Amino acid sequence: MFDTFGTVVDWREGIAKGVLDFFRRYGLKGDPHAFADAWRGRYQDSMEPIRLGLRPFTRLDVLHAENLDAVLADWGIDTSKMDRADIEHLNRAWHRLDPWSDSVEGLRRLKRHTFIAPLSNGNIVLLANMAKRASLPWDCILGAEVVQAYKPHRDSYLKTADVLGLSPEDCVMVAAHNDDLFAAREAGLRTAFVLRALEHGPNQTTDLRAEHDWDFVADNLITLSDLVFRGTEGQIPQNR
Amino acid sequence: MFDTFGTVVDWREGIAKGVLDFFRRYGLKGDPHAFADAWRGRYQDSMEPIRLGLRPFTRLDVLHAENLDAVLADWGIDTSKMDRADIEHLNRAWHRLDPWSDSVEGLRRLKRHTFIAPLSNGNIVLLANMAKRASLPWDCILGAEVVQAYKPHRDSYLKTADVLGLSPEDCVMVAAHNDDLFAAREAGLRTAFVLRALEHGPNQTTDLRAEHDWDFVADNLITLSDLVFRGTEGQIPQNR
Repeated sequence: MFDTFGTVVDWREGIAKGVLDFFRRYGLKGDPHAFADAWRGRYQDSMEPIRLGLRPFTRLDVLHAENLDAVLADWGIDTSKMDRADIEHLNRAWHRLDPWSDSVEGLRRLKRHTFIAPLSNGNIVLLANMAKRASLPWDCILGAEVVQAYKPHRDSYLKTADVLGLSPEDCVMVAAHNDDLFAAREAGLRTAFVLRALEHGPNQTTDLRAEHDWDFVADNLITLSDLVFRGTEGQIPQNR
Repeated sequence: MFDTFGTVVDWREGIAKGVLDFFRRYGLKGDPHAFADAWRGRYQDSMEPIRLGLRPFTRLDVLHAENLDAVLADWGIDTSKMDRADIEHLNRAWHRLDPWSDSVEGLRRLKRHTFIAPLSNGNIVLLANMAKRASLPWDCILGAEVVQAYKPHRDSYLKTADVLGLSPEDCVMVAAHNDDLFAAREAGLRTAFVLRALEHGPNQTTDLRAEHDWDFVADNLITLSDLVFRGTEGQIPQNR
């Protein structure tokens, strides 16, 4: 089970590119990367009321759109005369993110040995459109929308394992984020850390190393596949 | 959106093969096709309490297992000394069904033009294992478990369209079963009938023709792709 934003795809460059296109269309000035960071900066807080049960489950496309409206307002960008379809197209930049250079080959290798699926907070059609465009070879699309629970809520891990008919300990959570792995381990899953030192750009300060004794630590998905499966054929349970 | 059992895969031959293997393992006599028919014969009734809200949503793997136990009992087969893993393996014969000969190529062609997903009563891992084994190129796995509603309940169609961010009229339900298409049309989806004259074996009496003026009628998935997309590029809305 794979975290997606940051672990499999480079959200920051992809969103900055979408923002740049939008800025150019409307003659706006500003740093697209800063805009991307501000948009992503609202990500965790926007899911929190849902994790706490204060808001019904709402798919990420909707939260992204709400957060985009808020950032546009923060930046003083007047959208009243803009074509709403352009703003919706920008919101769907999250469906059009490019994978890190090792992701497709790494997932292909892992898929030969085991069953692979995203466990992302992205909604189903976001992840499916991303996979279709980027040739991510998932065996199926899983994630928050399927189990109606946002990571790192414990239910997101446990219910996803249950959908697969697996015990938590038969699953490996793969992520570039120590907090995601911490929650996955608390729920009983095994854990694999993948270093993505440029997720937040050249000045990244977080998740530059494995902060716990995760079951696997690798610097990309190809080396992860080699690490997990070289000489250990069959030790990872197949999907039952 | 595709019905799966009967429309994309040949459940009767696949299940009969699984039953034959099981019968041989335990030295049992009997007609595997008749056993397959008896097992499938309990399919609709087992979902009905869930459709009526009398039982919480329960995935099809569980219903299949309950129905298998019932058929084994009906046939007077004593399972008390059998290995439970063999019975579970037989139950997962539903994960190992072969596609009709046109299905993989037909889906590949359709996938080049539009977004394709099963809308099946099969559960997620059943459909994903089937797809992995049979190379069914779904863009994502959808169906009853994702929306927690069994066809032909109206919710199964409407909620699946909603997951995709589509209006019902932007979706086409593809099935070899007139009743499935009838319910899909009632929910506002477009409809495509595919003839599967051998789904129930050589003596099939049902679904041998389109019983209503469905939007598309084809005798397999390759001809369906040609019918829908030849010269009509762009008329089917892309996933938004």
